[in-house]
Amino acid sequence: MKQSTLTIQTTGQGYMLITDVIAQALATMANRHHNGLLHIFLQHSSASLTINENADPTVRQDFKAFEEHLVPRSFPYQHDYEGEDDMPAHIKSSLFGCDLTIPVTQGRLNLGTWQGIYLCEHRDQPHTRRLILTLQT
Amino acid sequence: MKQSTLTIQTTGQGYMLITDVIAQALATMANRHHNGLLHIFLQHSSASLTINENADPTVRQDFKAFEEHLVPRSFPYQHDYEGEDDMPAHIKSSLFGCDLTIPVTQGRLNLGTWQGIYLCEHRDQPHTRRLILTLQT
Amino acid sequence: MKQSTLTIQTTGQGYMLITDVIAQALATMANRHHNGLLHIFLQHSSASLTINENADPTVRQDFKAFEEHLVPRSFPYQHDYEGEDDMPAHIKSSLFGCDLTIPVTQGRLNLGTWQGIYLCEHRDQPHTRRLILTLQT
Repeated sequence: MKQSTLTIQTTGQGYMLITDVIAQALATMANRHHNGLLHIFLQHSSASLTINENADPTVRQDFKAFEEHLVPRSFPYQHDYEGEDDMPAHIKSSLFGCDLTIPVTQGRLNLGTWQGIYLCEHRDQPHTRRLILTLQT
Repeated sequence: MKQSTLTIQTTGQGYMLITDVIAQALATMANRHHNGLLHIFLQHSSASLTINENADPTVRQDFKAFEEHLVPRSFPYQHDYEGEDDMPAHIKSSLFGCDLTIPVTQGRLNLGTWQGIYLCEHRDQPHTRRLILTLQT
Repeated sequence: MKQSTLTIQTTGQGYMLITDVIAQALATMANRHHNGLLHIFLQHSSASLTINENADPTVRQDFKAFEEHLVPRSFPYQHDYEGEDDMPAHIKSSLFGCDLTIPVTQGRLNLGTWQGIYLCEHRDQPHTRRLILTLQT
């Protein structure tokens, strides 16, 4: 089992397609004979990781618009130290989750044709987000 | 680590109990001495995998009715190439997730008494859905 | 790969921080040379596991208040054998999920500074909840 860390800078609230960044990191850990699993863990509670459509940017814009409807800022939260985007970001983080496991086949991510990996920034401001990758073979 | 693929035909929007199909696939990969984990990965972004109640069919009907409330078709999505069920299906896929990891004990899925595995079809029309199973021992 | 089981008593609906309990269980399975992954599986369909903020108790209170808004008891569910908290608990269990995988580095959970592990009880009454831990090294 191999582990490595990765940091990704977000640009504030939104859904980033990070498939290529993860694939590049995997290439340094695996060779073309590896069959196994890649575990990706995000060390934060106000951002998340998910897998979704990898082609049309409006999908990611719709996610951003819809999350405001699903987890509104106007709910009477107690925890608001860091502003109105604070508690909604925590809830979205748990709804989407902070870890993914993806099959690796012959050293490559075995995603479906339309699947990409999203790093979801739920805070308004840009953040540096840290991920831990673990390759199981 | 062993990998295999599986395709399942859905009948359109709804929640299918696929525990038996997965257990049969596991039986071809594991023997009764295996302790480990089974990873199940769905290669799609408009369907999902989850674990829930395995006995009463009305639970799955309630999931289907409630998902229309949780992620309504009437939201002003930009991405609607494939109809009004297109973007809601993507959002539901990320809320429930497309991968599961389940303990395997003595070669069998170690689920709780009331737990079953659901394949959730979020599109209106029937689809052929592809899964990758990875057994870790 | 090592497996063990753990039972945790909940006190009814709410979000319990169980990081210390999991860390103690891990300490009996791992030594300080272990790099790998800890898989935590909850054998129930009306409770869930998630990772979120580990410091301010009002975050967990906000989760409890918000889940009533997200999955209201007043929806016309068919499945209500066990009361108005029955079907909402099932839906919440699938939204948050019942399994987590966490990196283990030098024998310890490699969580972010603000991350803790929550056991989420979605039923009104206290329950005994059973978890299966699997350490992969």
